[in-house]
Amino acid sequence: MRVGIFDSGVGGLTVLRAVAEAMPGLDLIYLGDTARVPYGTRSPRTVIRYSLGLGSFLAGQGVDALVVACNTATTHALPALQRAGAEAGVRVFGVIEPGVTAALRVHERGAIAVLGTEGTVRGGAYQRALVQARPGLEVVGRACPLFVPLAEEGWLSGEVPELVASRYLSDLVGQIDTAILGCTHYPLLKEVIQRALPGVRLVDSATETAAALLQALGPQPGQGARVFQVTDHVERFGQTGAIFLGQEPSPVEWVDLPPPAGAFASCCPEGRF
Amino acid sequence: MRVGIFDSGVGGLTVLRAVAEAMPGLDLIYLGDTARVPYGTRSPRTVIRYSLGLGSFLAGQGVDALVVACNTATTHALPALQRAGAEAGVRVFGVIEPGVTAALRVHERGAIAVLGTEGTVRGGAYQRALVQARPGLEVVGRACPLFVPLAEEGWLSGEVPELVASRYLSDLVGQIDTAILGCTHYPLLKEVIQRALPGVRLVDSATETAAALLQALGPQPGQGARVFQVTDHVERFGQTGAIFLGQEPSPVEWVDLPPPAGAFASCCPEGRF
Repeated sequence: MRVGIFDSGVGGLTVLRAVAEAMPGLDLIYLGDTARVPYGTRSPRTVIRYSLGLGSFLAGQGVDALVVACNTATTHALPALQRAGAEAGVRVFGVIEPGVTAALRVHERGAIAVLGTEGTVRGGAYQRALVQARPGLEVVGRACPLFVPLAEEGWLSGEVPELVASRYLSDLVGQIDTAILGCTHYPLLKEVIQRALPGVRLVDSATETAAALLQALGPQPGQGARVFQVTDHVERFGQTGAIFLGQEPSPVEWVDLPPPAGAFASCCPEGRF
Repeated sequence: MRVGIFDSGVGGLTVLRAVAEAMPGLDLIYLGDTARVPYGTRSPRTVIRYSLGLGSFLAGQGVDALVVACNTATTHALPALQRAGAEAGVRVFGVIEPGVTAALRVHERGAIAVLGTEGTVRGGAYQRALVQARPGLEVVGRACPLFVPLAEEGWLSGEVPELVASRYLSDLVGQIDTAILGCTHYPLLKEVIQRALPGVRLVDSATETAAALLQALGPQPGQGARVFQVTDHVERFGQTGAIFLGQEPSPVEWVDLPPPAGAFASCCPEGRF
């Protein structure tokens, strides 16, 4: 079985890594839109347009299922992608629902925090899903824009990330008992985040998404082929990707995205890429 | 006289601010490609393609001159923009040459450092221009990726920016006597950078570019009209822009970039946008 995983850039490799660990036999195509990263500060309309293009490109390569590894893309574009996927016969999974389910499982008292990019926090998809599942629940959204460049620099421990995490998070201590790492980059900073939030349960959307995929598709035999496609800079993806994947991603191919086709084109809000 | 200033996002407002101070009568159109920011990590080919699109759009609005406020765009795309501008009758100014001239004016001994994004430092345009003007000069390039998000967060002083600046720069102390702030965002962190580099002369490409423009065009009478155009998120540009401009930019318009036309299309390396 072949599964496509897409992300705005390199961060979704944490999701691919978790999926590959949970289902080593799956053939995986990773598509990182490195020419247009980051999605976190872009408008919903732009994120939907980009996401449909990525989904269309993967569907065109014959994937059986599609994982939207990017939290911002899941926030804004999952409904449009699922509509297109239903027409095209491709199951579409996002990272938010698994994170929400896991957070509600471990949550006991106080509020749940959603840590993410500006787009994810403002978009409010995590918050809506949490409150819908448990009305009256208190949810705090917290954008942490410096976490992404810290992860990409590989500054995963030490004084700078500790201080940044403390500045973003320390006022949440005592107020929350659970925090969702709602951005693909944040699992790399998990230890630093945990120290800024002592006693708080951290939910990693990447591993939860992999578990949800395994449950939905069942164990899959196969060779576990991997291919990595990016819309810009093959070399840079290899270098930064190694921080996220634990080994250099290979092979990496540059791809030029065509306009979305078929169901993905008709679900595009502007009717064009 | 009407001058167009473009940048990958919000950072070029430091250049607009300096130009407006030097030549208050100029009518200025600012174009920020916020849908595709940042350019600093993109490949040269992509940056050239994007820059020709921005230049074409401003030329289509009848500007007499064009300022490439983005250091990365100047690094990769200035020759292509100048070829297109020469055909279209639009003078094109970049931020690198003024910074280089100023650095050579104040430099006395040791090396000159170029601080910028990955794209600017790897692209090597500052380094080449410095060495061409003064053969044998020692030039050190230093990418400081966290400076941009720090500036956009408005974390311009305090422990975090001090530590980040020290981590990026402290080994340069004693080795350099001059540092070029080769990214539009860096002037906001000038005080922090100065403390990390005590005694080092800092050259601000924004003010040097404004001075070069004044020298080339001469004083210009006029009403000093301003308009700000962005390719994404009008509201976010207004908020972050205030940090860079010292006041909220207004009016801000969303624009949908058409493919480059005329001379700008024929100078596009792929023949298309």
